[in-house]
Amino acid sequence: MNKESKIPAPTIERLAYYSRPLESLLNSETPVISSEKLAHLCGVNPAQVRKDLAYFGEFGVRGVGYNVRDLLWEIKKILATDRDWTLCMVGMGNLGSAIVENENFKKRGYKFVAAFDSDPTKIGRTLPCGLIIEPTNRIGEFVRDLKVEIGVITTRPHEAQRFADLLMDSGVKAILNFASIQIRTPECCEVENVDFAVKLENLAYHIAKIL
Amino acid sequence: MNKESKIPAPTIERLAYYSRPLESLLNSETPVISSEKLAHLCGVNPAQVRKDLAYFGEFGVRGVGYNVRDLLWEIKKILATDRDWTLCMVGMGNLGSAIVENENFKKRGYKFVAAFDSDPTKIGRTLPCGLIIEPTNRIGEFVRDLKVEIGVITTRPHEAQRFADLLMDSGVKAILNFASIQIRTPECCEVENVDFAVKLENLAYHIAKIL
Repeated sequence: MNKESKIPAPTIERLAYYSRPLESLLNSETPVISSEKLAHLCGVNPAQVRKDLAYFGEFGVRGVGYNVRDLLWEIKKILATDRDWTLCMVGMGNLGSAIVENENFKKRGYKFVAAFDSDPTKIGRTLPCGLIIEPTNRIGEFVRDLKVEIGVITTRPHEAQRFADLLMDSGVKAILNFASIQIRTPECCEVENVDFAVKLENLAYHIAKIL
Repeated sequence: MNKESKIPAPTIERLAYYSRPLESLLNSETPVISSEKLAHLCGVNPAQVRKDLAYFGEFGVRGVGYNVRDLLWEIKKILATDRDWTLCMVGMGNLGSAIVENENFKKRGYKFVAAFDSDPTKIGRTLPCGLIIEPTNRIGEFVRDLKVEIGVITTRPHEAQRFADLLMDSGVKAILNFASIQIRTPECCEVENVDFAVKLENLAYHIAKIL
């Protein structure tokens, strides 16, 4: 991790993508993978893979490839996914429910320990994962007691900033926001705004050129 | 659009993000915005905004800013969001339902015209938007008849590639994939793989450094 402070954000995002096929390869007991094969599995070019991994020192063996277990372990260490994280969900509509029950999250150590909604017909309901939906006016108390590190927001846009502020005031260090508004956070907190429509606009841009 | 062929993918993605506050400003009848203000609203730096917009020619007036209506219109033209798109959804669990009913998608001209699932208990159910859930074995027929342009997949990972192939064989030009597997597509089709856990891993990377 000799150059870690200079790692560009797109490399960090690609590292997460590289880890996906590596996990499958580890499960199927494949010991080694070439940069060409890994690139193909991830839909990027091999030079990109080699460049991204070079940020973290010399992994591969020329003409042989990368040791799958070592590479995956190193990526997980870099991304800090070699530990568990505590999360809470604000907004238990279809999207919130889908994310809280997501097996992929659980498998990667992202554990939802609380779920909130302001709809009285949802409050008190027990989810398949065993959590009970709590009222949003108890966010502060739960976040502090359960030491929640990451808050996920799937509320309507006009409520999102207020809940983000409440989460941060209660000690959350990062927010993943799915409400269709850009959330502003102070320097001390990280935020990722996820807008599905942006992904569709990327697609539309590319296919409009070929239609 | 003098340099359009060289526009980097991150710029395209940021254009979509820039359009969000511009829409609000247009609705509130704000005629002009500075690059500083737009950058602040989008959480990027002003130099980035100016650089991104410079790909498309000279928009702004030095010391004054950008005309909100013109800039939004130009971005929509570039992103091809000045027209409607027809979409179908494969997989009507919580996530599929959340996306099909998403008001933000509808507002931006992304219209779901069909929804599919292979679960017999879901097939035939009428959704709040009026669509009826159809069996996945009718995907080809519906996609051809309704001229579906973009397919969205929210199935379990092991089924995703098969449905992607079926969608593409039936004439879909682009796929937005939420299943936690990288979908491979031929050159003729665009694909965006969306993996929420990647966003969490980005957050984890950043907050692990400050904890």
